[in-house]
Amino acid sequence: MDMKSFALKGNILYSSTPKELVCIPQGYLICEEGKVEGVYEILPERFSTIHCIDYQDSLIIPGLIDLHTHAPQYAIRSLGMDMELLKWLEYNTFPEEAKYSDPEYARKAYSIFAQDMKKSATTRACIFGTIHVEGTGILMDLLEETGLICKVGKVNMNRNCPKVLCEESEQSLKDTKVWLETSRIKYKNIKPIITPRFLPSCTEDLLTELSVICRQEELPVQSHLSENLLEIAFVKELFPSTAGYADAYNEYGLFGGSVPTIMAHCIYLTEDEIELTKKNEVFIAHCPDSNMNLSSGIAPIRKYLNHDLKMGLGSDVAAGDSLSIFKMMVETVKVSKLLWRLQDQSMTPLSIEEAFYLGTKGGGKFFGKVGSFEAGYEFDAIVIDDTSLEHPQPLTLKQRLERVIYLSDDRNLVGKFVAGNRII
Amino acid sequence: MDMKSFALKGNILYSSTPKELVCIPQGYLICEEGKVEGVYEILPERFSTIHCIDYQDSLIIPGLIDLHTHAPQYAIRSLGMDMELLKWLEYNTFPEEAKYSDPEYARKAYSIFAQDMKKSATTRACIFGTIHVEGTGILMDLLEETGLICKVGKVNMNRNCPKVLCEESEQSLKDTKVWLETSRIKYKNIKPIITPRFLPSCTEDLLTELSVICRQEELPVQSHLSENLLEIAFVKELFPSTAGYADAYNEYGLFGGSVPTIMAHCIYLTEDEIELTKKNEVFIAHCPDSNMNLSSGIAPIRKYLNHDLKMGLGSDVAAGDSLSIFKMMVETVKVSKLLWRLQDQSMTPLSIEEAFYLGTKGGGKFFGKVGSFEAGYEFDAIVIDDTSLEHPQPLTLKQRLERVIYLSDDRNLVGKFVAGNRII
Repeated sequence: MDMKSFALKGNILYSSTPKELVCIPQGYLICEEGKVEGVYEILPERFSTIHCIDYQDSLIIPGLIDLHTHAPQYAIRSLGMDMELLKWLEYNTFPEEAKYSDPEYARKAYSIFAQDMKKSATTRACIFGTIHVEGTGILMDLLEETGLICKVGKVNMNRNCPKVLCEESEQSLKDTKVWLETSRIKYKNIKPIITPRFLPSCTEDLLTELSVICRQEELPVQSHLSENLLEIAFVKELFPSTAGYADAYNEYGLFGGSVPTIMAHCIYLTEDEIELTKKNEVFIAHCPDSNMNLSSGIAPIRKYLNHDLKMGLGSDVAAGDSLSIFKMMVETVKVSKLLWRLQDQSMTPLSIEEAFYLGTKGGGKFFGKVGSFEAGYEFDAIVIDDTSLEHPQPLTLKQRLERVIYLSDDRNLVGKFVAGNRII
Repeated sequence: MDMKSFALKGNILYSSTPKELVCIPQGYLICEEGKVEGVYEILPERFSTIHCIDYQDSLIIPGLIDLHTHAPQYAIRSLGMDMELLKWLEYNTFPEEAKYSDPEYARKAYSIFAQDMKKSATTRACIFGTIHVEGTGILMDLLEETGLICKVGKVNMNRNCPKVLCEESEQSLKDTKVWLETSRIKYKNIKPIITPRFLPSCTEDLLTELSVICRQEELPVQSHLSENLLEIAFVKELFPSTAGYADAYNEYGLFGGSVPTIMAHCIYLTEDEIELTKKNEVFIAHCPDSNMNLSSGIAPIRKYLNHDLKMGLGSDVAAGDSLSIFKMMVETVKVSKLLWRLQDQSMTPLSIEEAFYLGTKGGGKFFGKVGSFEAGYEFDAIVIDDTSLEHPQPLTLKQRLERVIYLSDDRNLVGKFVAGNRII
């Protein structure tokens, strides 16, 4: 659909704040030049001739945002998850990622990932590739075809990994520059993001040089922070002179400030790290599914919300077993309940409204004005037909959204718009 | 399909013990008179003329067993789950269950439940109805039509509940007898089970009389035990003279021994209660989804396995949000990892094999020889076509089963047999 202006009619729901869900039954959502012009209960006279798609009784909500996932690991999701992070990387992940040196395997595997991403409720994602320039290019090509808007990273890693994935610093930087040269200009919707794997995999000089690239080329960065207790101890060993995990990233210029940054997990942040995360406006990608599967723990999201940290949700495939951000919303609520019950009764469990906010407007902020239907937001919308979720009683719109979050799957997705372009 | 003997061909997988998964690629599973005759790598000569359904590359596994769920709550699954047990019963559950005094509503709601149960991978279930005799009869009628084998209970409760659901003891017993009279003889596959809601809802005299009925009519019993800390405190208040929650059930003759018993949850059992549970051969229905949704906690399943307790899985809709026992297997593993991480590092997380065992052979034992493909077991089998779960690499049968457990849905179920009768 190449129309510049159009309207969607249906039951419109979106977050204005973490606690507030706006519900407009049988409303009109107007798109102008890829942006939300407004939401109306009655179609204003000035739009009387606009092309209007009537989705009848379906729900229209903002596209979901996945702040953290690994495309090459999609092939091993739900397999062999009886290990913690470092062993899991060694035995499952690195052997799989090594396969992406073969462009044929990369194309085969990434095609499945890209198609499943397209069929999901996600409209935007931040995605790790592998170290391989060609393979990562194939991933970006395939994602561009889907119409999704993504930031994709060629991974950098030069220590503590198998030889076949271990880059020399110089080659890593050279490859990164080659990759950036093409990928900065080749795509409309897919943009590069600098991607040092995590501190244990990167030497100080590599981190420093990547930070220079971020600044020179005005690129964002994505990595992992404070996911697992053994990992944190390892970082302390590797970076003895820094105050902690976040401080080390900060010291090498890869922790927010002028470099927009996403850090996945953040389960065990100290009070100082929380302050630094806030000050530098670093985004936390909360990945509850992954954090259960790898026995990592539960991130104290209530505390982070109280500190008003920037935050969204991540599927973190393949430590997470699903691409569904709806599922991540459900698990955000569930693990927050267990944290309250098992560890700290000051941490009130999250509500479903708060989880919905995190998976839409919370994560969307990393992409600018994304994840809501307020005027001026980019027009990312999905349409859910929930009639297959039968029920015997009348339901409010909020209740229907709750059921969609818990119970829907790709069969219920009947429309998907990214920055005003219809892709389903 | 009314054949008394037939064979299924495909990739056959089943549990022999909690740790051992038997995998037979392209094997033959023989049914004779509703029971498993055997599993063979090559079809024995004596079966050369048997009718054989060739499921090609699909997986054939035992039907899943749901030891605990509430049919009337299916309508409110995934709604309003921001409360703990006692409040949730008061605000969500009791108002919904009250609606089942209306046979028309009961038929409408239970039809949805029965159809979704039929489409699921579950072949047998133990199910709570409501207090209503007519409504519970409608549920049993509808379940009988599905071909599933179920034990269904008219609920008994005579205190601490809204007036409209609160029975007089005498009427409760009279209604139970009326209900039993019909339901004991009316059905082929659906059998009654005595169902005192839980201790807070039942007076001592009602419990005692129900125990008499169990013994006179040789009926099993299902209820709840040790789900929530406030509930446990309430039970202590209500039954001050007994040593604890399990002891109270035991005192009133409703805790195993000659009365086959399922107790849902069992999160906070004391060492004495564990011993009693073992001695009396009480089945535990582990309900991890419910225990997260209602912030109840995490049952120490590793400890119970070490004690060799009888145990299976329960969906516990609507505190659980899904009927899928595959999902309960996944969550069994996930919450066991969080218990290990957050509370007790002696509790090794469960493996997927152990969770699969609990959802098949573990729970199946409550129904007799059910939940495995060893010779003499009842012929409950499901067939899963996993081709839609695309992957770029070769996978072993065990890996394919892992993926099915984590990723499949009703679309992947292409065959379902209950005691030798094909229902899908």
